[in-house]
Amino acid sequence: MIVALAGGVGGAKLAAGLAAILPPGNLTVVVNTGDDFVHLGLAISPDIDTVTYTLAGLNDRTQGWGLADESWHFMSALERLGGAQWFRLGDNDLATHVERTRRLRRETLSAITADFAKRLGIRQHIIPMSDDRVSTMVDTDEGELAFQDYFVRRRCEPRFRGIRFDGLGDALPSTGLIAALEDPALEAIVICPSNPLLSIEPILALAGVDKALRHRSVPLIAVSPFIGGEAVKGPAAKIMRELGLVPTPAAVAARYDGLLDGLVIDHADAAASAPEGLRLLVTDSLMRDAPDQARLAQEVIQFARRCG
Amino acid sequence: MIVALAGGVGGAKLAAGLAAILPPGNLTVVVNTGDDFVHLGLAISPDIDTVTYTLAGLNDRTQGWGLADESWHFMSALERLGGAQWFRLGDNDLATHVERTRRLRRETLSAITADFAKRLGIRQHIIPMSDDRVSTMVDTDEGELAFQDYFVRRRCEPRFRGIRFDGLGDALPSTGLIAALEDPALEAIVICPSNPLLSIEPILALAGVDKALRHRSVPLIAVSPFIGGEAVKGPAAKIMRELGLVPTPAAVAARYDGLLDGLVIDHADAAASAPEGLRLLVTDSLMRDAPDQARLAQEVIQFARRCG
Repeated sequence: MIVALAGGVGGAKLAAGLAAILPPGNLTVVVNTGDDFVHLGLAISPDIDTVTYTLAGLNDRTQGWGLADESWHFMSALERLGGAQWFRLGDNDLATHVERTRRLRRETLSAITADFAKRLGIRQHIIPMSDDRVSTMVDTDEGELAFQDYFVRRRCEPRFRGIRFDGLGDALPSTGLIAALEDPALEAIVICPSNPLLSIEPILALAGVDKALRHRSVPLIAVSPFIGGEAVKGPAAKIMRELGLVPTPAAVAARYDGLLDGLVIDHADAAASAPEGLRLLVTDSLMRDAPDQARLAQEVIQFARRCG
Repeated sequence: MIVALAGGVGGAKLAAGLAAILPPGNLTVVVNTGDDFVHLGLAISPDIDTVTYTLAGLNDRTQGWGLADESWHFMSALERLGGAQWFRLGDNDLATHVERTRRLRRETLSAITADFAKRLGIRQHIIPMSDDRVSTMVDTDEGELAFQDYFVRRRCEPRFRGIRFDGLGDALPSTGLIAALEDPALEAIVICPSNPLLSIEPILALAGVDKALRHRSVPLIAVSPFIGGEAVKGPAAKIMRELGLVPTPAAVAARYDGLLDGLVIDHADAAASAPEGLRLLVTDSLMRDAPDQARLAQEVIQFARRCG
């Protein structure tokens, strides 16, 4: 059993690679929910949906988010009625949000996520980090912004000054997350190439998770989200620079504060400052397609075993 | 100024005819909201939407409800996730429900309906009968059913035994409805060819409406929804028969209990039992297309003036 901690697109890609090479049922993907928000009265879980759609093979590979073969009639009709246009919801994607919102009145996000995954033919476990509300708030030079305001509406343009996870103090990790970390069959924990600050740190900051990870008996490795000091997608590198950090392997390892047994980095970062006292795997970490994902996943698993 | 009381499709057709022949702004359509319900967490107002889409020229004339050129991607995606299929929401139509649901947290249904109408280019006034919740409950031989359960899910198959408007005792008529009835410029009130029991009686039963109508100084006429003892659309005739009533002009007039100055009926019903002490206009009341709607509207207005 492998546990992968993931955010959005990069995490979903490595999760898909791991799903391709591991026996069905031997992968648990724990997904950030700090980006979750309510839009048009609908409960949106962007990272959960990216991982789910990707593992189901339904994701749009061109735009990098949402569903392939999506249509946009709802958005056009909404525009005609004066509705908000800044966050785009496809007609198919909308079914996920409407049905989730309806079911959340009586069920946990964990239960709904598991059921959606099953219905879409996914045989791996997808688990939200928490069933409680955690809202990422971004402190910028234009004031504090809710994450999607910063990320989508403002396209990460304001200067990043810090981050706050509203509700984190009262949130419990999901029972599935704790069960996965305590599973006797657990072999390794993999932090996917997701944004350390925005996607992974909220998971690590949940009550009890840091402690469980520090008392683990299995290797914990991370895959750096940077290639040549830049993120493949998203604002990770921009954010780190705006915090005065350099997006190097050493900086990634520092974000995980002594937790790691090993770090996977790209050839392009081999010359950058490396973390001390940590095993390194230097490889081609760009995942262009499914074979890339499976190959990187295979290397990651083998590396994790060597780190044990 | 003409006030029309309307339910769904039949009422919307006559309202469209009235809109075509009256100066813009001289028509107020008061619409039943007893069919309103919450589905998938969304506030659905079927009659309001039918009237709005019809006056905007966006209605689907073939199926008789919803929007023309509708697409159904949302429903397909919802089916994949195990969501309810019995009430079908088109991708474009969905924008109305999502945006209305969102806005209802801070605004009245009246305000939202007026704004949607304006945005869709409608120059007539569309007013919900009430801004409070009224839910039509149908007593059948299979027990009491919420209206849409009876009407859509069960396709009106259970035997109709009676009707109850849940919430009606606490509901106030909308301020727009009262203002329209008190407007000094009011010339006539027209009850559209809608289901008397399901669509018109909830409007009439609102506190103060019956009294205002009985103290009116303008003619009040109704257009029978029956042609040859059958409804053009919907269960009106079936329901009346199941209540032991015969769908005749006399029965329609009786439902309105002495309120009417005149009744418009179809040639096909001219031989059926006529109400006593009431002016009758016998005409072709089937509205196949826009010219039919305008012609009937013209006859209705002229007849209403003669009833004054």
